[in-house]
Amino acid sequence: MQPTTITGVTVTPVAFIDPPLLNTVGVHQPYALRAIIRIETDGGLRGVGETYADTAHITRMEAAAEAIIGLDVFALNRIRDAIDQRVSRMTVTGGDGVAGMITTASTTDRVFSPFEVACLDIQGKALGRPVSDLLGGAVRDRVPFSAYLFYKWAGHPGAADDGWGEAIDPAGLIRQAHRMIDEYGFTAIKLKGGVFPPDEEVAAIKALHAEFPNIPLRLDPNAAWTVDTSVRVAAELDGIVEYLEDPTPGLDGMAEVAAEAKMPLATNMCVVAFDHLKPAVVKNSVSVVLSDHHYWGGLQRSRQLAAICDTFGMGLSMHSNSHLSISLAAMVHLAAATPNLTYACDTHWPWKTEDVVKPGVLGFSDGAVPVPTGPGLGVEIDEDALERLHQQYLDCGIRDRDDTGYMQSIDAGFENTSPRW
Amino acid sequence: MQPTTITGVTVTPVAFIDPPLLNTVGVHQPYALRAIIRIETDGGLRGVGETYADTAHITRMEAAAEAIIGLDVFALNRIRDAIDQRVSRMTVTGGDGVAGMITTASTTDRVFSPFEVACLDIQGKALGRPVSDLLGGAVRDRVPFSAYLFYKWAGHPGAADDGWGEAIDPAGLIRQAHRMIDEYGFTAIKLKGGVFPPDEEVAAIKALHAEFPNIPLRLDPNAAWTVDTSVRVAAELDGIVEYLEDPTPGLDGMAEVAAEAKMPLATNMCVVAFDHLKPAVVKNSVSVVLSDHHYWGGLQRSRQLAAICDTFGMGLSMHSNSHLSISLAAMVHLAAATPNLTYACDTHWPWKTEDVVKPGVLGFSDGAVPVPTGPGLGVEIDEDALERLHQQYLDCGIRDRDDTGYMQSIDAGFENTSPRW
Repeated sequence: MQPTTITGVTVTPVAFIDPPLLNTVGVHQPYALRAIIRIETDGGLRGVGETYADTAHITRMEAAAEAIIGLDVFALNRIRDAIDQRVSRMTVTGGDGVAGMITTASTTDRVFSPFEVACLDIQGKALGRPVSDLLGGAVRDRVPFSAYLFYKWAGHPGAADDGWGEAIDPAGLIRQAHRMIDEYGFTAIKLKGGVFPPDEEVAAIKALHAEFPNIPLRLDPNAAWTVDTSVRVAAELDGIVEYLEDPTPGLDGMAEVAAEAKMPLATNMCVVAFDHLKPAVVKNSVSVVLSDHHYWGGLQRSRQLAAICDTFGMGLSMHSNSHLSISLAAMVHLAAATPNLTYACDTHWPWKTEDVVKPGVLGFSDGAVPVPTGPGLGVEIDEDALERLHQQYLDCGIRDRDDTGYMQSIDAGFENTSPRW
Repeated sequence: MQPTTITGVTVTPVAFIDPPLLNTVGVHQPYALRAIIRIETDGGLRGVGETYADTAHITRMEAAAEAIIGLDVFALNRIRDAIDQRVSRMTVTGGDGVAGMITTASTTDRVFSPFEVACLDIQGKALGRPVSDLLGGAVRDRVPFSAYLFYKWAGHPGAADDGWGEAIDPAGLIRQAHRMIDEYGFTAIKLKGGVFPPDEEVAAIKALHAEFPNIPLRLDPNAAWTVDTSVRVAAELDGIVEYLEDPTPGLDGMAEVAAEAKMPLATNMCVVAFDHLKPAVVKNSVSVVLSDHHYWGGLQRSRQLAAICDTFGMGLSMHSNSHLSISLAAMVHLAAATPNLTYACDTHWPWKTEDVVKPGVLGFSDGAVPVPTGPGLGVEIDEDALERLHQQYLDCGIRDRDDTGYMQSIDAGFENTSPRW
């Protein structure tokens, strides 16, 4: 086998056009940021990873990139340790990349993740095998995703309609859902809530249920509700949603709601690092964990999370932020090789119009993505596209995701409070 | 890469000479049994695994061997699933291979394990990489083991002294420890207890502590004691043992002892399957889990166990039964790639005088085994030796490990009771 010692790492921030999607902390800015990680090895094989691009995160990744030069792509334990040592010496703060919604994830795991993915990409290429084969092998040929609905404006202030139109009420969401399902064939629906008062969002879910009676529904208000409100909403949505996601903040609040709610409670806010699992189990806070390899420390540690969920009787789903094809490929390989990932995964995919990889490898049919079978992740950088989206990053002026600040630039009275209702 | 579809599997039981080592359920028979698994693939690569050889276990493995023909060695999830489906349809009972001491392990995990090891051996050979590289990469170049002391007779009844001599009191154990440490350089000592009344074993541990004041000690009575006895022994051995292993039966009893004992409690009896982990965590039954890939479902699932221990604040050590070099190689690769395996591992290695692999790859220095760096496990079957130990299996007449029955054939009044004191 050719040698696979890391000889070079590049971290390239990119920006891609993002619609004004509303959430409880504000609204998506006109561009979403991602960083593309490329690793080169002495044998000539190259691998790619994708992650957040907030300033502090990039600073950490550039330090991590230096720290792993000279290590072998198979030495993942040592690579993580080198990154852990380097990152723990740094004083830079912030840079979670998710607008403050996931602040307690492990910094080391978040920094390590794209490097691990790129190393697995190289391992797979060295073997001539897909990354899923490095994770125990695919147990499904296609990975189902959900239609991720957002309340949204027709366009960013001052800009034209983005093509999706406005969705600030049940009728708008139903239009959005029809278009997304027609185009992608999704067989599950998730609504990002926490935007309007709970009764309006309950009405929206009930309208979606009436329109799509056989499609499993989820509602995620990002901890916008008190315990009492959450319990009331849970009673209203009993039998209508397959799970209720992060109704209220914190493990204790979630445990209070879980004791009353009849549907499973899911989270990607109060259980976002390995440290949170024991208290979550002891308190019975959640029934479903939304994994996300970007902050759970890569694909192998996400498999460990999956094993923990299986062992401790919790279900497993998958979280998404705005992302490009490299992340989608990693998500698909991981999901394919995770037997107990039985829910349709989340993805922001339909909301993006630009990418950094050559087209043709990843596509949706019947709401699912066929698992790539070529070596590694199976995606290849389009150098022109990467350069264009990097230039867009340089030009757009956005350096940190800030949904709240952007919302306040439009609505000076907006406050980011949790719980709000 | 050459194709790696499984085209053939052989299961070869072997017997090797074993001294009369005493434990709380009886005494080791004159031969220990193991089964050697060999997998062939269409590309010509072959892999090996090693496991128990009790009759029922062999029956299950032969069924499993049929079930995985045609699957790829990278499709470990599918191989486990195929074995799980096949084994769960079978009505054969027993066959734990450990004389009744570990009866609640997952049958599927126990059957899957040697096949997984053999598949990883082939994966490593296909890559030209050691198995440790398939597990995240070695974090240590040498894996420390403990000197595993046993009370024992000088020889099997009617046979000559086996060369180790008698050890039925502190003086005998100290002689045994000196010889073992002189020969292997071990820097930790484990005593298999549960053989004599607790006060005698406490005296033995204190004598070992006086003789080897800087060497960490462990005592494992295999659940021979009541809760009260365990608490009393724990108080006596405070500051002397690094952990106390399975003093009393069951998660509830262990939790009662753990609440009083100052040292960590370890187990390879009440937590031997993933199902046991949640109750153990909720009850605070144990502080250290002794992993063992032979019943935890192979190397990858043992890594998941390691992640669970890390996540839930439990320490990790490694359990051993009588074994040959293939198992030692697998244990070393796993231990090398498991960062939180910080205790010296157990091994019965010094007690065996025969093997099935070509010599030279695995050896002890300063109490540790250097991690093999060649492709796969790094061990190669010696066909003549394998045939000889298989013939010994055919000739010896032992088909199931039965320490209790063998003891009763010598001492008709012996009873296997737990707790005994």
